[in-house]
Amino acid sequence: MSIFEVKDEDLAGRIGILETAHGKLETPAFFPVINILKDDVRITDLKNLGLKNFITNAFILYKNNLVRENIHRELNADDFIIMTDSGAYQILEYGSIEVSNLEIVNYQTKIRPDIAVILDIPTGNTDDYEIARNTVEQTIERVKEASNIIKNNPNNIIWVYPIQGGKFTDLVEYSAKQLNNFDEIYKIAALGSPTVLLERYKYDTIIEMIHIAKSSIKRGIPFHLFGGGLPHIIPFAVALGVDTFDSASYILYARDGRYITRSRVYKLEELEYFPCSCPICSKYTPKDLLLMSKKERTKLLAIHNLYAILEEIKATKQAIKEGRLFEYLQEKAYSHPATYTAFKTLLKYKDYLEKYDPRIKGNPKGIFLFDESSLYRPEILRYKQYLDRYSKRKQKAIIYCYNSKNYESIYDLKEKIMKEVTEIDAEIFLALPFFGLIPLNISNSYPLSQFEMPKEVNEIVINDMKNKIIKFITNNNYHYIELRECENLHLHIDSINSSSG
Amino acid sequence: MSIFEVKDEDLAGRIGILETAHGKLETPAFFPVINILKDDVRITDLKNLGLKNFITNAFILYKNNLVRENIHRELNADDFIIMTDSGAYQILEYGSIEVSNLEIVNYQTKIRPDIAVILDIPTGNTDDYEIARNTVEQTIERVKEASNIIKNNPNNIIWVYPIQGGKFTDLVEYSAKQLNNFDEIYKIAALGSPTVLLERYKYDTIIEMIHIAKSSIKRGIPFHLFGGGLPHIIPFAVALGVDTFDSASYILYARDGRYITRSRVYKLEELEYFPCSCPICSKYTPKDLLLMSKKERTKLLAIHNLYAILEEIKATKQAIKEGRLFEYLQEKAYSHPATYTAFKTLLKYKDYLEKYDPRIKGNPKGIFLFDESSLYRPEILRYKQYLDRYSKRKQKAIIYCYNSKNYESIYDLKEKIMKEVTEIDAEIFLALPFFGLIPLNISNSYPLSQFEMPKEVNEIVINDMKNKIIKFITNNNYHYIELRECENLHLHIDSINSSSG
Repeated sequence: MSIFEVKDEDLAGRIGILETAHGKLETPAFFPVINILKDDVRITDLKNLGLKNFITNAFILYKNNLVRENIHRELNADDFIIMTDSGAYQILEYGSIEVSNLEIVNYQTKIRPDIAVILDIPTGNTDDYEIARNTVEQTIERVKEASNIIKNNPNNIIWVYPIQGGKFTDLVEYSAKQLNNFDEIYKIAALGSPTVLLERYKYDTIIEMIHIAKSSIKRGIPFHLFGGGLPHIIPFAVALGVDTFDSASYILYARDGRYITRSRVYKLEELEYFPCSCPICSKYTPKDLLLMSKKERTKLLAIHNLYAILEEIKATKQAIKEGRLFEYLQEKAYSHPATYTAFKTLLKYKDYLEKYDPRIKGNPKGIFLFDESSLYRPEILRYKQYLDRYSKRKQKAIIYCYNSKNYESIYDLKEKIMKEVTEIDAEIFLALPFFGLIPLNISNSYPLSQFEMPKEVNEIVINDMKNKIIKFITNNNYHYIELRECENLHLHIDSINSSSG
Repeated sequence: MSIFEVKDEDLAGRIGILETAHGKLETPAFFPVINILKDDVRITDLKNLGLKNFITNAFILYKNNLVRENIHRELNADDFIIMTDSGAYQILEYGSIEVSNLEIVNYQTKIRPDIAVILDIPTGNTDDYEIARNTVEQTIERVKEASNIIKNNPNNIIWVYPIQGGKFTDLVEYSAKQLNNFDEIYKIAALGSPTVLLERYKYDTIIEMIHIAKSSIKRGIPFHLFGGGLPHIIPFAVALGVDTFDSASYILYARDGRYITRSRVYKLEELEYFPCSCPICSKYTPKDLLLMSKKERTKLLAIHNLYAILEEIKATKQAIKEGRLFEYLQEKAYSHPATYTAFKTLLKYKDYLEKYDPRIKGNPKGIFLFDESSLYRPEILRYKQYLDRYSKRKQKAIIYCYNSKNYESIYDLKEKIMKEVTEIDAEIFLALPFFGLIPLNISNSYPLSQFEMPKEVNEIVINDMKNKIIKFITNNNYHYIELRECENLHLHIDSINSSSG
């Protein structure tokens, strides 16, 4: 039986249900990192935030003998879905740790978290291909090594297959593809750690890594992004099919006096106003927090940071529900040039996004079209395919140009044309930015009658429209073409006929 | 003495302090409309939200005999700055009301709100120019009529001059300019009601109206937008210099089951998740609210809607503090095609925005550059003026092209070039998108060394860069020009020299 059920899809992203020993988790979901040794954010705080899941480090629990046999009972967290990480982060930080893979796998098997990770070797941010390849090979060895224990001691634990390779996409691909040999044992895939890339604003590299990893494994496998829990990258990662995230950023940043918003990170002293309404930010001002003890301030900042991350998750899920994740990313792109670059990188994978984007969405809304990026929407790409396959029905075509400035609705436009055109021997088209040409007789179908566009579009979009019109006319070779109200477009019938001739 | 002091500026927007009889109000500020006859949102609720000001309708207070002589005392609102509206909204709704201008002005003089409005004749959304002109003329008559009372009964009330004219910008201009005859008496200007335009997504018309009104009065006069309190328009209005807003939308929408976010309005049943962390949204789900009584749901929705509006105000103020209001609008533009159109309309007023945008901002941050809209930033416009005035110092120019893909920082680039170039008889330039050419010797100055741009920019930005380079070379007529690392730009020296010859 599958542990993961998809409920809604948009682009290549999805809302799903992950079935665990301690209940169902709706995804996309964020696992905050909890360090049991520290008291600034505790499990009870997570409960107050409405969280039902967290991740904690099995290596720390083991080394400090914090949990002996039942993690839920001993951490007093029976209501929570618990994921344990293995100590790979410590390997990344300190080079090595004093336990073996089998030791930590056995330990996790004993304490029974809902989700567990073997002790993989993280690639990190190395520029050295050979070192990177080595981490991938070693991780695969450890996957093999652990699989015998895991196979014989299921204990209802979901085991995670770690994908490594860093920024070398061929290694990420190789690493991900090996999961196909182990997918009876490892039920979740997880991509190794983009933390350094996140800190250096290399969001585009993270997008490339996720795309290649996701493209190399089965669509139905839940996908986790290690350490990827910043709001700035979450919706882009979700659009590619990432289901779960974890991160300690909310608390690490808080200790450093840093405040996370859905679009950036501030030093507390840079803020005069909190651009947020969470229970912390609607009660205190930045100045209030600066006057507090560090301990108190850290706690409040950490709680706010968690609210910001959870709000991003909720906003992303709501965008999926409405089928407008593309628009959400387009808006989000403008929060930072690095996010804009990430968005443009995502658009390179337009075919991947289109492939998984559902043809029929639950509650289709009017699509919002803005600029040349909107040309990469699945709806627009599919309409282009439709136009490319179109065969003329008649020998004459009448093209009405759309003027967005006077435009009220496509219904009004259609009504006006229907009154005006009496020829029954002609096919009638509307020329529209983004779409190119729309045959009047299908103009009521989705999304042709359900879109909004600006009053003016830029020259790239206008040129795209012209090219689509010229290509269409060339393909269909009409005997006679008439343009009406197309003066502004400077699309002269002669030039079209000569290119179609 | 001036009642209004500007503390911070960005574009033509500002953070200011409005001095009233009941204390100082920091602007931009939002005045929620409170209807004393209704109990869904009360003054005590506003206090819990941290609000220190509201607006209420003097006509309703008068007609129902709710306040007799001291509005603060009788409404138990001594901590609040109170603005009273006059009944113009009722005229708009019902055609006329049964009190006269002088009656309501006298009444307000008696009950002593901090800010008061005469009974103007709102233009509304009429398409009839003559009707619109009439409302303007009548409003000016009423301004004159009231001025004698106001002059003799100051009572520390700040009186508002209502600007009418609707969508007819020449009428708005005429109406606004008349204030110059009365500005010893009326200390706040207020633009009449864009409510219908807001509902119909005609944000661009509102932008045009605000621009012409603001351009027609003195910069130092505080400026109010009647009924303009939706987050979707607030930051655009602020960028043009609007200081205060009022609106009943938060409660009217709540009664209709509608949920306001910073970028759109939802029907409650369209929401599966609340994309918000306010005390309401972090406690309840949309389903929880749907299961409540209408009364309870309306109250919670109204409180959330207020949080959303206040969050927008805080975010806008924070953007002004950081000097990055332009970027904030650019991101916000993508929330709806109508907002995008509003943003593009705002860019038409680039000279107005540049004029008031401070040359030196408190804490200059790196500017974020994205696409062709970024070319309208004051910093980029000013740099263009600098280039246009530039005179060559030497006869030879060496131009290094910038490659954003390999670019780490302008410092690295400069260092590399300094090592490479040994000619002392040449001026050295960097060719960069958005800027055109930057002389190497000034490349450390703001914002030339403090910007972020995407790894790839679109062809409109590339063409703009080429045009700036060609214009510069043409103007300066160098004897010898050398291009280095400019292959990708397809900017051939021959074509430049021929255009410069």
